[in-house]
Amino acid sequence: MSSDYTEMWRDLGLDIDAHNALLNALGEGYQQVFLSQKNRPAGMQYFDFVMSEVHGLRIKELIDAKAEGRIIVGSFCVFVPEELILAVDGISVGLCTGADFGMDLAEKYLPRNTCSLIKSAFGFKLSKVCPYMESSDIIVGENTCDGKKKAYEEFGKLEKKLYVMDLPQTKSDSGKALLRAEYKKFIQALEEKSGRKITVESLKKAISIVNNKRKAIHRLAQLRAADPIPISGLDALLINQVYFYDNPLRFTESVNKICDELEERIARSEGVFPKGTPRLLVSGCPMAVPNWKLPFIIEQSGATIVGEESCVGERGTRNETDLTGSSVDELLDNIVERYFQIDCAIFTPNPDRKNHVKEMHKKYNADGVIHYALQFCQPYDIESHGIEEVLESEGIPVLNLVTDYSQEDVGQLSTRIEAFIERING
Amino acid sequence: MSSDYTEMWRDLGLDIDAHNALLNALGEGYQQVFLSQKNRPAGMQYFDFVMSEVHGLRIKELIDAKAEGRIIVGSFCVFVPEELILAVDGISVGLCTGADFGMDLAEKYLPRNTCSLIKSAFGFKLSKVCPYMESSDIIVGENTCDGKKKAYEEFGKLEKKLYVMDLPQTKSDSGKALLRAEYKKFIQALEEKSGRKITVESLKKAISIVNNKRKAIHRLAQLRAADPIPISGLDALLINQVYFYDNPLRFTESVNKICDELEERIARSEGVFPKGTPRLLVSGCPMAVPNWKLPFIIEQSGATIVGEESCVGERGTRNETDLTGSSVDELLDNIVERYFQIDCAIFTPNPDRKNHVKEMHKKYNADGVIHYALQFCQPYDIESHGIEEVLESEGIPVLNLVTDYSQEDVGQLSTRIEAFIERING
Repeated sequence: MSSDYTEMWRDLGLDIDAHNALLNALGEGYQQVFLSQKNRPAGMQYFDFVMSEVHGLRIKELIDAKAEGRIIVGSFCVFVPEELILAVDGISVGLCTGADFGMDLAEKYLPRNTCSLIKSAFGFKLSKVCPYMESSDIIVGENTCDGKKKAYEEFGKLEKKLYVMDLPQTKSDSGKALLRAEYKKFIQALEEKSGRKITVESLKKAISIVNNKRKAIHRLAQLRAADPIPISGLDALLINQVYFYDNPLRFTESVNKICDELEERIARSEGVFPKGTPRLLVSGCPMAVPNWKLPFIIEQSGATIVGEESCVGERGTRNETDLTGSSVDELLDNIVERYFQIDCAIFTPNPDRKNHVKEMHKKYNADGVIHYALQFCQPYDIESHGIEEVLESEGIPVLNLVTDYSQEDVGQLSTRIEAFIERING
Repeated sequence: MSSDYTEMWRDLGLDIDAHNALLNALGEGYQQVFLSQKNRPAGMQYFDFVMSEVHGLRIKELIDAKAEGRIIVGSFCVFVPEELILAVDGISVGLCTGADFGMDLAEKYLPRNTCSLIKSAFGFKLSKVCPYMESSDIIVGENTCDGKKKAYEEFGKLEKKLYVMDLPQTKSDSGKALLRAEYKKFIQALEEKSGRKITVESLKKAISIVNNKRKAIHRLAQLRAADPIPISGLDALLINQVYFYDNPLRFTESVNKICDELEERIARSEGVFPKGTPRLLVSGCPMAVPNWKLPFIIEQSGATIVGEESCVGERGTRNETDLTGSSVDELLDNIVERYFQIDCAIFTPNPDRKNHVKEMHKKYNADGVIHYALQFCQPYDIESHGIEEVLESEGIPVLNLVTDYSQEDVGQLSTRIEAFIERING
């Protein structure tokens, strides 16, 4: 990090020692996982910089924005519409989770049989190491899975800024009505906290900003169809992760810039891995920073990742919000339409996800699918059976993995992934 | 069993050998757990008889009813209103689950990290040993927890009669509207399948029948406040389990009859255990037949159970449905009001359950609470933390247990329960 932010972190109430330990571990992991890669696009320098300043300069930006009267809204889920947050001139940030940190503290509040993502969020809170959480004015929880839904009851004891949004479980008319009612309530909460009213103008502007961000990330996704692939799966995942932290305009510009570079690479048949490298689609649970375990193993094992069917990836970013409408209510309808399409495994049934996995497999010229479920994540773990069935019926190789944030199973995962790649090659 | 039902079972498509093996195991378990108890009320003979014929005479009754054009509706959850089923002259039955049976088969469809209750339902289906499932015309699944919600997608592949009912997750206006819409849809499904229309008259009659059943079971619950306790926790649980299988009129009569007997016992200060026996409330996940593991251990360890804060128990049976109303729609409103009060851990937040546990503890003169969660049941497992906190703040001793349907941890559970009882005595 370029400056000393100790004072800022202390003001946020962070535990400086624990936070330094976390940053050191992250820095080392980043060096090993990202900076050691070969043939990286030059455009990754921007994202490396963002990551190096993710607890520094970006937090300073948030604090400066707060000083100007803007609100910070932290969330854990792609069902929280960034459009609405931007429309009150707020800043939307993804909250810390993704590391095997503070799990022992988390288990004082949660059963051991809780997924790593949830335990990690508690771990960050209880260890006082997440500047995003501490600088947020509202922290949005959402009733997705049972684990999160019930864990927020405990989280509310630790964090008074928690706001819980209910979510539907079926793609029915009642389900859609419930989502709309919840987004209405969320607008009210945002307006109250920010002191600003959402207008047709502010909402249209916000929708455009988010649509442009999605367009850019889609452009990136499509370039990964090329063989040789112009960018590693790890770097593409990183960009999808930075999506949740960065200033959206700057992010969009940087993604488009790297896309220009990747297009040139493709024109020159230049890639990060040799042509013919086995190509895998990863499908399943989201991977938040710094959860890079599985993609690192995959790309160390001689394959490359061509897409993420994930909330940190195409499940979260696909589909734009329609800009047509002349009232806030009409635009809200469009937002509901867009978000109601998200094919999260919390929905039952969830046929769209099966179709989307097949579609991504085809579009990005994948040779097989790795289904990734966090241990104790019942929605994705159970749904993997149906996904596997559909893919196998089409002759698509699938490897079903269940893991957590610890490093204990790295050897076992490597063995299974190498065997899967051999099977694809054979 | 008094007759040979082999032909009937074969007609239902049961696997006769596997079914015989199950019945033998059940019979032995029943002998050991129930018939070996001392000082049992004479009125238990009726329930022993029902249990001895639970796969025999009762199934014959169902089949005879079907021959008369009545429908059988099987379900797994107390959110499925028996009132509506009776109002089309249907028969409501609880479906088989509660035994460590066919788990290996179930794990071909479900992750190992799925709770025993769900795996058991699959085990019964895949082993072809549940005559209730096979004789049902409609099998109602419901979106309670993630485990069930997602498992029904797999179950639907095995069972074409599956009908899935969505449920809310919050006690909000939208939540109530969703429940009402789902009950409306359920009425339609019942009317279609039965060829009968629900009328004000048929619905009022059905509500009365179910209210009377609930009144009787409440009368029983209240008699357990006495010391010495006039009936064992095991026998009281059994009656709560039979609630889901028996003819409701005959059941109500039999419960009232045993209550008359228990009142006489109380008048004579006669009990099944000596006065001063430590008294425990069990709170948590439902225990379906033949899941008697925990109460058996508790009552073998020198304590008695004074109440079940459970869906198979007071959470499921408390609150009657208001009979006031002059249209089906008005009566449906009453049904929605009644069921919306159920304080299942799938709701967030769920403060009523905490209050109810405290209230039951007081009302039934308990000395402590055992919280019982099935392993991998995230709603109850996570909620146990808040329950424990509330009880401890009031000085009520709590023991938090997580277990499954296997017998592997019996020794460990016994040790913990004995230590808890010593703590209460000390």
